[in-house]
This record gives sequence, C-alpha cells and structure tokens, in this order.
Amino acid sequence: MSEYFPSSEFEQTGQEMHALMASLYPICRSITGDGFRASLRILQQHIPLEIHEVPTGTQVFDWNVPNEWNIRDAYICDPHGNKVVDFKQSSLHILQYSQPMHCRMPLAELKKHLFSIPEQPDWIPYRTSYYKENWGFCLPHRVLETLPEGEYEVCIDASLEPGSLTYGEYMLQGESEDEVLISCHSCHPSLCNDNLSGMALAIFLAKWVSQVKRHYTYRFLFIPGTIGSITWLALHQQEAQRIRHGLVVACVGDSGNLVYKKSRQGNAEIDQAVLQVLKDSGVEYRILDFIPYGYDERQYCSPGFNLPVGSLTRTPHGEFPEYHTSGDNLDFVRPHALVDSLSKYKQVLELLEANQVYVNTNPFCEPQLGKRGLYSLIGGRKGTEQIEMAVLWVLNYSDNEHSLLDIARISAMPFSTIREAAHALLEKGLLVRRK
Amino acid sequence: MSEYFPSSEFEQTGQEMHALMASLYPICRSITGDGFRASLRILQQHIPLEIHEVPTGTQVFDWNVPNEWNIRDAYICDPHGNKVVDFKQSSLHILQYSQPMHCRMPLAELKKHLFSIPEQPDWIPYRTSYYKENWGFCLPHRVLETLPEGEYEVCIDASLEPGSLTYGEYMLQGESEDEVLISCHSCHPSLCNDNLSGMALAIFLAKWVSQVKRHYTYRFLFIPGTIGSITWLALHQQEAQRIRHGLVVACVGDSGNLVYKKSRQGNAEIDQAVLQVLKDSGVEYRILDFIPYGYDERQYCSPGFNLPVGSLTRTPHGEFPEYHTSGDNLDFVRPHALVDSLSKYKQVLELLEANQVYVNTNPFCEPQLGKRGLYSLIGGRKGTEQIEMAVLWVLNYSDNEHSLLDIARISAMPFSTIREAAHALLEKGLLVRRK
Amino acid sequence: MSEYFPSSEFEQTGQEMHALMASLYPICRSITGDGFRASLRILQQHIPLEIHEVPTGTQVFDWNVPNEWNIRDAYICDPHGNKVVDFKQSSLHILQYSQPMHCRMPLAELKKHLFSIPEQPDWIPYRTSYYKENWGFCLPHRVLETLPEGEYEVCIDASLEPGSLTYGEYMLQGESEDEVLISCHSCHPSLCNDNLSGMALAIFLAKWVSQVKRHYTYRFLFIPGTIGSITWLALHQQEAQRIRHGLVVACVGDSGNLVYKKSRQGNAEIDQAVLQVLKDSGVEYRILDFIPYGYDERQYCSPGFNLPVGSLTRTPHGEFPEYHTSGDNLDFVRPHALVDSLSKYKQVLELLEANQVYVNTNPFCEPQLGKRGLYSLIGGRKGTEQIEMAVLWVLNYSDNEHSLLDIARISAMPFSTIREAAHALLEKGLLVRRK
Repeated sequence: MSEYFPSSEFEQTGQEMHALMASLYPICRSITGDGFRASLRILQQHIPLEIHEVPTGTQVFDWNVPNEWNIRDAYICDPHGNKVVDFKQSSLHILQYSQPMHCRMPLAELKKHLFSIPEQPDWIPYRTSYYKENWGFCLPHRVLETLPEGEYEVCIDASLEPGSLTYGEYMLQGESEDEVLISCHSCHPSLCNDNLSGMALAIFLAKWVSQVKRHYTYRFLFIPGTIGSITWLALHQQEAQRIRHGLVVACVGDSGNLVYKKSRQGNAEIDQAVLQVLKDSGVEYRILDFIPYGYDERQYCSPGFNLPVGSLTRTPHGEFPEYHTSGDNLDFVRPHALVDSLSKYKQVLELLEANQVYVNTNPFCEPQLGKRGLYSLIGGRKGTEQIEMAVLWVLNYSDNEHSLLDIARISAMPFSTIREAAHALLEKGLLVRRK
Repeated sequence: MSEYFPSSEFEQTGQEMHALMASLYPICRSITGDGFRASLRILQQHIPLEIHEVPTGTQVFDWNVPNEWNIRDAYICDPHGNKVVDFKQSSLHILQYSQPMHCRMPLAELKKHLFSIPEQPDWIPYRTSYYKENWGFCLPHRVLETLPEGEYEVCIDASLEPGSLTYGEYMLQGESEDEVLISCHSCHPSLCNDNLSGMALAIFLAKWVSQVKRHYTYRFLFIPGTIGSITWLALHQQEAQRIRHGLVVACVGDSGNLVYKKSRQGNAEIDQAVLQVLKDSGVEYRILDFIPYGYDERQYCSPGFNLPVGSLTRTPHGEFPEYHTSGDNLDFVRPHALVDSLSKYKQVLELLEANQVYVNTNPFCEPQLGKRGLYSLIGGRKGTEQIEMAVLWVLNYSDNEHSLLDIARISAMPFSTIREAAHALLEKGLLVRRK
Repeated sequence: MSEYFPSSEFEQTGQEMHALMASLYPICRSITGDGFRASLRILQQHIPLEIHEVPTGTQVFDWNVPNEWNIRDAYICDPHGNKVVDFKQSSLHILQYSQPMHCRMPLAELKKHLFSIPEQPDWIPYRTSYYKENWGFCLPHRVLETLPEGEYEVCIDASLEPGSLTYGEYMLQGESEDEVLISCHSCHPSLCNDNLSGMALAIFLAKWVSQVKRHYTYRFLFIPGTIGSITWLALHQQEAQRIRHGLVVACVGDSGNLVYKKSRQGNAEIDQAVLQVLKDSGVEYRILDFIPYGYDERQYCSPGFNLPVGSLTRTPHGEFPEYHTSGDNLDFVRPHALVDSLSKYKQVLELLEANQVYVNTNPFCEPQLGKRGLYSLIGGRKGTEQIEMAVLWVLNYSDNEHSLLDIARISAMPFSTIREAAHALLEKGLLVRRK
C-alpha cells in the first residue's frame, strides 16, 4: 500500500473519508426526496457532481419512477404522553415511504406497524415499503417489549407526492470513449458501511482519477438502489454499451477482508483485474461467483445488458450482524479499512489503464538482452533475478494475444513487476503496442 | 420421496415390485427360448407389451441371431445313483446353451465341465457358452469337493436348433417423435438384482409413464443382453436416431447407494438430469465415467451410434459378491430399495419432461416483481426467500441459452424449486418458451 | 524397464554411458573453440556426427556469432611463487571467455576477478562472460580466504579472435519428412550432470534409433547453449517447421526422479507422450509448466517458433546444490540413473512412432470378438481381462478422432496394453489406419 500512500497521508485520507461519512450520517436519505438531494450537495463540496432529476411517473423499462417522499418528523407517544419513538433521534425509526398520518390507536393496532429484531434487541432495524402503501416505525425490540397497554398517538409528518427521482453523476473524459463505471447506491438513511462507505470511497477515488492521465472515460454514479440503476439504464441504453469495466461500491469500511463478487460474464477483464490486485496484495480475500441478488450489479448484469460489472466489498451485505440496523454506525466503519479499500480500487484502475497487449519485435529466439543492460553479464549463477524473469515472460508471451494481465497470471508474478519489465522492453524497442 | 409416493403407497409399490420378481424368479431365461417368452407373458399382465421374434440366422451387423436353446431337464447322478446336481432345483445349475446329451463318464472327465467358485463355496455360479458348442454344470464348490470317484450319469434334455430370438417392446407415444429409451436385459435365469430388478422397475415405470402427459415418446425394451440390443439396433437404425435420452436399467434392488454411469457423450442432457436428481436427493451417490464394458449401453454407445444412453443402478455389476451367483436371490433385493430406485427414475423423466429453455420477456433490468406478488413488499430484511432467489436466477439466466437444468446447476438450487419459479414467471407472462 | 534392457545389458549400457562421460570430462569446452571440437570428435567414435562451423560475425537473428575462444593455460601465483589456482587442475578455474593476459597485481585488485561460493566453500563455481570483455578465475571459497596479501602473478594464455562456432548434427532419415528433434547443449567444461549426461544419453539414444524402423526423421543436435540453438534456428528456419516433436536433454544422470517440463504449447503430442511414459513407469515424477527460462527450449519455444519441444530431465538445473560447481563431477552421476533416463527416452520415441489414429471398421455395435479369439468364450465371470478391456476401449474410441495415446489416457491403461490391443485388432481387420 505504501506505494500509493505514504503512511501519514494514508492515515489522513482515512480520517477524511470518515469525516465525510460523519457529515452525511444524520440525513434521512431515501430513494427520492430532499435527504438524497442534501447528500449530493455535500458531495459537491468534493467533486463537481452533476445532479439530475427524473420526474415521477417516467416509465423506466418495467417500472415507473415513484412518487417523491419527504419526511419532516415522526413520533409515537405512549398513553402517558411520553415520546417512546422519535424520528429526530434516528432516521431509521421510520418505515421508509410511510404515508403521512396523525391519529390515535390502541397498542394492539399499533403493533401491526412496528418492526424490531428480537435476536438483536438493542438495534433499530431498517425497513422500507417503497411500492406498497403502508406506514410503520422501527424500534429496538427491548423498547417494543416495554410498551404499556393503552392508546397511543402516532404522527408521521411526511409527504408522498409527484416529484422526481434524483441522482448524481460525475464524468471524467479520457482519451477513449470506452468507459469505466463506478456506481454506488446512496439511498439509505443513517447506515454507514452499507451506503456511506461506498459514497465516500467513490468520492475519493474520483478525486484521484481526476488528477491522473486517463485512457478510459470514467463515470461515477450516485443513485438510489435498484430504481436508480434501472432509471439510469433505461435513459442511457446507448451510453451503457460503452461500459468496458465496472464496479459497484458498497460495504468498504468494516474490518473484514476484501471480497470480490464477479460479473455475470465471470471472466471479464474487470474480474481478472480485481483478482490480480487481491492476489498481489498478499492478504487473504474471497472470490464469489455472480448471483442475481445484491446491489445494482443485479441490473447492470441483467441478461439484456450483461455488462462486465462486478462488486468489490469488504464483508458482503447480510454477512455482518450490524447489516441494516442501527449497529451499522460510525463506529462500525474504520478509517484504516476505508483507505485500504480505496487503495485497492486505485490499483484496479491503474491495472486497467496499464493493461495492454504488446508485440515482441524479435519473436524468433530471445533478443540479446545483455547488450541492452536487461540481463546479467556474468553467466552461470543459479537462477535469475525476478525482473529478469519478468522480462523473459513478457517477451515470450507478447505474441499479439496475451495482455500484461494474462502474462502476470501465467507467470504467477505481480502485475507491477510485469508492467515494469514491459516498460523496460518498450524503451529498448523490443516491444511495441499491438495495432 | 414422499412427493412421489405417500408412505403407505411407497411400501405397497415396493412389495408389488418384489412380488413380480418372485413370479419371474424360477424361470430359466436365456438369450433365446421359451423361458424368455414365458417371462414376457408375465410382464404382459402388467403392460401391453408387444412380443417380437427374429429368426435364427438373421444377420445383425457383425453377428447372426443364434440357434434357439430350450431346456427341459438336466442332472448328474453319482456312482451310487444319487442326483448330486439337479436343474429342477435351480436354473443356474446348467451352463447356458449346453448341448443335449445323455451318457456316462468318469469323474475326471466330468470335472472338465463343472464350474464352481472356490472362494464362495456355497453358491452356484452362473456361466454361459452361447457362441461355442459346449456343455456343463454349475454347482457349489462345497458339493463339487465331495463328489466320490466313479462313473457318473450325465443328462441334459435340451434342444439347440433354429428358432428365433424374442424381445418385448412397449411404445408410449408423446407429443414429439423424440424418444426416451428404457432398456433392460431380461435373459438371465434365477438372478434377482441382475436382471429381474431392472425388469420390475421398467414395468412399474412404464405403468406410471402411461398415465402422465408426455412430451417425449417412450420406448421400453426387454431384450436379451448384447445380442438383443445389437439385433434391435441393426433392425431399427432409423428409429435409433430419434433417441434423445436413454437409460439402461439393472441392479436396482440391492441396498447400496445409487450409482450413475455416464453416457459416452459424457455431458448429455440425460447425464446432467441424473446428476441433478441424485444431487437433489441429499443422499450419497457415485458418478462413473463411461467405459465400454457393462450392459447394453456398450452397444447404444458404440461409436457408430454414440447415443446419449447412461445407466442408473445401485451397486454396479461385479461389485457385489453375490453377482452372477445363486446369492443374487429374492432375499438380496429389498422392496424399499426397488421403490427408491423407481422414484429416482421417475424424477429423471419428470425432469426431462420439464426441462425447457425459456426467454425472459423483460431482459433489460429486473421486472418489478413486487407488484406481481413474486417478491416481498417489505424491504430491508437480510437475505431473501429460496423461491424469490429462484425467481431471480430464472429471470437472469433465461436468456435463450440456458435450460432450467442449466439454471439449477448454476444456482446450486434443487430443480424442483427452479421449476416452481419458472412456472410462477410463466403465469405472469414474464417468461415465454423459446421458439 | 526390463522389456528394453535385459538386466546385464542394462548395467553394461549404464557403464558405457558413464565411460563416455569420463572421456569427455577433462576437456575445457566452451561455446566455441577447440574443446568443443575435441568433444565432438570423441562423439564421432560412436555415431557419424556431421561437424558444422559457422564463422564469427554471422548474424543470427538479434545476435552475432562471437569470437572464438581458445585457452591453453591459466594460473595465479601467490607472492611466494606458489601456484594457488591452476587451470591444469580443473577447467572450471577459468572464467569462460577470459581475455588473454599476463601481469602482476596486488591481492585487492585481483579479488575483483575472483569468483567463489561462500556457502559451498569446497567447490569451484562455473562462471562465464561471453558477451562482455572480462577476465577472471573461479576457486573454492576456502582457498580464496587463505590468500595472503601481496603481489600476485596472473597468467591467462588464451586467444579470443575471429574463428567459428562449432556444432554437431546427426540426421536419421525416416519414412516421413516430419522430424523429431533431440537437442543437447555441449558447451560446459568439466560438469557432468549438466551437459555430459545429456550428451551421453543423446549418443546412446541415436545409436538405438539408427537400428530401428523409423516413421519419423530424427535430428540430433550437439550445440553450444543459447547461441547454438539461436544459430541453428536462424540458419534453418524452413527445417525447423518440420519438427513435430522435440526434447531438450540435460541433467539426466543424478539420482533424483524424472521431471518433465512441458513445451510452451502445453498439450502437444510430445507433452502427452512423456506424461504417459512417466505415468506408466509407476515411479514418482514431476510435471512442470513451461517457463521461458532453462536450456535451449527457451529458443525453440520462443513465440515466433513455438515448437513442440519439452525437456525431460532428472533433478532440474538449479535444484541440486552441485549445479554449476565442481561438485557436479563423475561421482555425482550414476550409471543406473543414466540408463533409466535413456530407457524413458526410448519409450517416448517408441510411443511417438506407435501413436496412430485408427478407425473401427465395425462402428455399429461391438463386433463379435469371441469368434475371432479376442474374447473369452465362457461368459458370466466377474470382470474381464486387462487385454480384453483394452480391445473394447480401442474399438469404442477408434472413431477417426482419438489416437492410441488418447485412448490410453481416457482408459487409464498403459500405452503398451492399448498398443497390443490395437495390433490384435489390426490383424483381424477390425481396425484400419486413418487415411
């Protein structure tokens, strides 16, 4: 990692990512509404994000953009007038897309609209009802159990009306029209690993990409989950065809090891690139085959698109107990994990940018490397240096068919060594780029 | 299994299969002759089997239909006049295709024609000499060892003359001319696991198939081993080309686990179907690659035909000590094993009938499942239901290329769940059958 | 092995191979010069090797044939006039391609030109400087450490002048122009496993090949490493295209197990053939994937040629401590290992000669083997004989696509058994050679 971040910069970047998350944490985001817009405005302080609005009712494939939901306040008062659930304390308390209401009802009636997790009695769950009219509150099971019988006051000061779906987009033009997509859902309320960590990583990655020479054009999307990617894909079917490599970012701040879920294609260049970076890291990791469940890769990898989009996370959704509860808070995500994830994303993009097919200009026998300073001049010693081996691998496999990434895999050498060897050979005119 | 047989019906079916075997057991079947015909007549009490006769001398590829062999009696009397070997006690006592004879000879001469198994001294072996003139008796080694010196009377009251080769055939027409072949050799004398169990299974399977809606046309063959399949193939080269899937049935009554021997093609749909059924069973099983030895799959899988025909057995021939001895008797085969084998054959046929390639009518992004009642309307919970996952798998892979069986394999889900999901999607118009 | 060598002949051949190495051992070979020529003349006592000379300066791809180096004497005298290093004691003492010189210098200056191995203090290392003007001596570290301070006399009585590169070639014409290449580097001074063992094996293999019926044409090359194969390939680009199978011979005399390094193609017929021979041997072995480092397979497998050339050795270069030191002497190589290696090379060539695609003349069902004496006439016994199984395998897979080697692999039977079955079937007219 030290090649990407000097140790102090490393620590500072992690703190900055965490600070960005802290500023986003209190906002009640949903798949539409002012919370989403407010979050994008905070992100605009870091990158010149373009904000798009798609009107309610717009048809997007089999779906329609839903009504816009905005919430101002919500609470439950017990028979004694005590606020036992208060939205102002946590954005998680409200069932997302709850209808506005204000009325009184007995506990038994109220309970049909209360969500808790008996196995995790201290945490507030996160629940939604985007596509069915409903209302409800989420609360710790321990609180739910102590509610006395009697009549309760229930207030939801919200609106659910025609408006629009909002998303943020940031394009960085490269030499080529071929695109790299970085997509993160940004529609969850006060949940850190699941949505804020991905947003923070995408922001810091975009800042870095904006400063480097780019072969590819980069597209960063900050969208509501599912309906957001469906909306973007429906309105950009042509642009989607330019996506050569893509990653869905989420759950990148917990202390677990990195996990890569492959694209539906299974052996796309993005899949190979992430594998190589994880292998070269020397740290344990896991590789999962594509399944049609998860985040927005479900849409990017639907059979009509089948884009080469994978997802690089730390502990995957659903595998950590804090998932979709108030336990997924600012303490659960760690600066060192955030910056380590960022570093891996950077390495993947660097690899994609550097990955080329070269052609050996002397394919018949080895060229004389010694006279060009690429090979030891004292012969007979046992073995050879790592970089000399890499030079031999690159020469032997630069046959118009194998990319540097292929050569790294075949040789079982780090990509960085293979790349270094290729650059040395390019300088000496022993390699040329494939036309 | 309970989905195929209520527990009491299950038990009853096993008893009925065993009873059918018991009625066939005493008959001395061979590759031709009245024993084979008598057996087919018993089977005709269950299904309207058509009986075919092919005259001796008919050329069938490199072979000729042999003379017909009929045996009435055979015995050996020792010097004291005691019947020491008596065909009436067991049909196994006679070397199959023994020439008729009646004469006296010393023990030393007789012994050249006696077959026993020293390692299994209590069992009568099963031996044949179809294609070389010979005569002989099979007996327990323990009996052979006690034979006193002296002159013996040997009597074989048999005929070996021009006649015909007999086989039984049962066709069940389906919507399609494409065929499923179920073939079992029926030419062994009093041997239970090796031949009677396969015959009983084929009968009960045919009864069931006759009562269900059929896409495929089904052909059940009850034939003498080797020469029977060669004869059928030689006389039905055109029909053989219609066989899309086939199974050779034998050794399905012992208490061992199921074993599938793949077709020569190795990854035909029948191979995948049986694998899926065995995997879904949750019980241990074994898969064997094709080898050109065994039962009639040797002929169906000869290189000129190379038909997709495998063999689903319990313990394979030669792996149980009772194989080809009098130990393979009515006690060796168990009703519960018979009916369990039958159940697996049914599941394989059901799978073949249900296996289709469907096409997702909304290939761009996921369709909105919630509004169609195919997806939970409360979001945010950890994971999803098995059937919801199956719905996602079927949608994602119904891309005009993958069959339901492919999707079951890729998703590692039971075929029945995938099929259920496909039916639900069909009803909602989200899938159509591939044209 | 006994089928190739009766035990006494086996022992005698091993002794003869070792004796040939002993006669070559004292000579100071290098990549050019009289030592190389003297060695070829010794080999000519065994086979009618043709000797070729390629003039200094000839361009061979990216290289030029270097000046010819000849050495007569070299020594170092210490301040007291004692010869502390004497080329006459070991050809390894001189850095190969040392410039001629005669002068005096202090120890500190001398030490810049002394090579030793601190970890192996009793052995003289082997070092070269073919392509950079230099001079030097190699000596045991234990001697180097005892050298007293003072002025030393250094004498190298050598010449490095235009001349030629020498190599030996032996062609054995077969029925076909298709070639088998056996290549061994012969340019190392007094080193046994690394170069003399390969030379001895190639000589005894050539003698054997010269006496047998040949489908292939055989080419034996005795060349200097790297520059020799580059020179031969540069001057014989057309001929190189005829090479169907090739092996680079080296390190075949130590007591380790056999190790096969695959060709760059990875699954060429030579790769399959060597694997089969090693598998059939019943002795442990190792298989290595191609890497672009090693002996002359580096050049034969360069991407422009990509010839099917592997390397069959015992312990590979660099894996034994004696490698490139005076420890690789006549005691290190054992007659029994030499002759075992030779036997495996013979088996590989026999397999290549015997490997054919045959076609079953009765592809529809099995032919009747019993009447042709190829199958037991008493039926019913458990299992079948190995050779009968081989007959069934050959018939089933002789479908115009599978070679005998393919069938041996698929059936997991020894190649010799498969070959025997094929010959029996050929005799009976049940197989024909593919046109």
